[in-house]
Amino acid sequence: MTTTASTFRARFEEAAVRNDSLLCVGLDPDPTKLPAGVSTREFLFSIVDATADLVSCYKPNIAFFEPDLAEGITLLRDLIAHVPDGVPVLLDAKRGDIGHTAEAYARAVFDSLGADAVTLNPYLGRDSLEPFLRRGDRHAFLLCRTSNAGAGDLQDLEVEGHPLYERVAYLANEWNERGNVGLVVGATYPEEAARIREICPDLLFLMPGVGAQAGEVQAAVQAATDARGGGILVNASRGVLYAPPAEGERWVDASRRAAESLRDEINRARAR
Amino acid sequence: MTTTASTFRARFEEAAVRNDSLLCVGLDPDPTKLPAGVSTREFLFSIVDATADLVSCYKPNIAFFEPDLAEGITLLRDLIAHVPDGVPVLLDAKRGDIGHTAEAYARAVFDSLGADAVTLNPYLGRDSLEPFLRRGDRHAFLLCRTSNAGAGDLQDLEVEGHPLYERVAYLANEWNERGNVGLVVGATYPEEAARIREICPDLLFLMPGVGAQAGEVQAAVQAATDARGGGILVNASRGVLYAPPAEGERWVDASRRAAESLRDEINRARAR
Repeated sequence: MTTTASTFRARFEEAAVRNDSLLCVGLDPDPTKLPAGVSTREFLFSIVDATADLVSCYKPNIAFFEPDLAEGITLLRDLIAHVPDGVPVLLDAKRGDIGHTAEAYARAVFDSLGADAVTLNPYLGRDSLEPFLRRGDRHAFLLCRTSNAGAGDLQDLEVEGHPLYERVAYLANEWNERGNVGLVVGATYPEEAARIREICPDLLFLMPGVGAQAGEVQAAVQAATDARGGGILVNASRGVLYAPPAEGERWVDASRRAAESLRDEINRARAR
Repeated sequence: MTTTASTFRARFEEAAVRNDSLLCVGLDPDPTKLPAGVSTREFLFSIVDATADLVSCYKPNIAFFEPDLAEGITLLRDLIAHVPDGVPVLLDAKRGDIGHTAEAYARAVFDSLGADAVTLNPYLGRDSLEPFLRRGDRHAFLLCRTSNAGAGDLQDLEVEGHPLYERVAYLANEWNERGNVGLVVGATYPEEAARIREICPDLLFLMPGVGAQAGEVQAAVQAATDARGGGILVNASRGVLYAPPAEGERWVDASRRAAESLRDEINRARAR
């Protein structure tokens, strides 16, 4: 699984074809849910080893590594390095800060940690995103319509007759000069996703919220795929990582089974 | 400089009276600007030692520690622990993520790193802030009107006839049930700051942007202080940390002189 693709988008698309998959697995360690006697490092590395031929992306969320401080950050860097070359890594970090500071974050995410893409918060405006966007080989997914219950507090506010998240979608098109802007669009809101796809026919959508957050795969996929039936990264974290093993089944096999089943469910929805 | 105050706000107010200061010093290490032969650790610890009787708060920005990975995060934790008890620490992190993830960030910021307060991004709505807000002894400063040039891209969008940042100010009042919500209001936009103070007479404002970002101290202070002439944390980072020494002056004395001069300038503006 080596690659010669030079951008995040090309690497994602290559993996999506090779593995026939729009599944992105979220690597969010929860010490209270690990199988007995298994370290966080061993757990995450094993999940990657067991699912790398079933996914088009991995998405560790840095929040779950930060509470362990130095040890957690070292593990995150090692985990990103452990992912096979043929599968890109999107770091879920939701960063957003002014120019000088955003440059430090971009260095941390892309250079020190080695991620291929990142999630960003657009509230500070274009100049806060620029240190990330200028890295044309990487990808920046801007929060647009998030999957949580309170998403609407700001995102649904009406701006010139349309919700704020639609304005963010238009801005994302405008800011996509290097072809490396994507959007975060919760799988829990299919109607909103369909509207955002109308506005942004060409952007990649990261779609969290299936599984533990109860988003329905079929509705989300049908609402959000692009004209070629792709362009989305459907993310599942806990539903894959902590899939309950059947009697006598190894935990890592249960995770693989959950990933395969979700990949196939996504593909059935695309085919319809 | 010990304290018996039990909340961030009380500790800030105690320090503001003791040191007659509304100055917050931003601890943002830049390896290219350190004095010759001085390590980042030695530099930051010395800055704290030299200015702790002149400030009401310290504000390290985690972005400047992340590029150094494990070493940086360990230094940040040690730095926070090094700040004397009588001066609170606000971690500039601009975090914002959905519930489960926000809980992990709150643990990292408040428990693992030991900060007394944090900056947060409100774009994901109230439920994303709740894991921080429920810590009644800590303080959460929500981005409202930031100091950067592109701040208006989203923050100035008109919602029911008023800019989005005003809506965030109203929401901050509403979400301030435990008295621990503050706002980030750039010192570079005094008119906006005055309007936000009208909306939020009781909230603490963190005001970045003086010095390197060219915000004017007098205009910012007069626009934003509360009815008692307080309620603001005027932040300066590079202007204090990297103050150029006069001939024969030690770098740490130049930083102390810059902090003292800024504290006095703020106090003159309050007195007018």
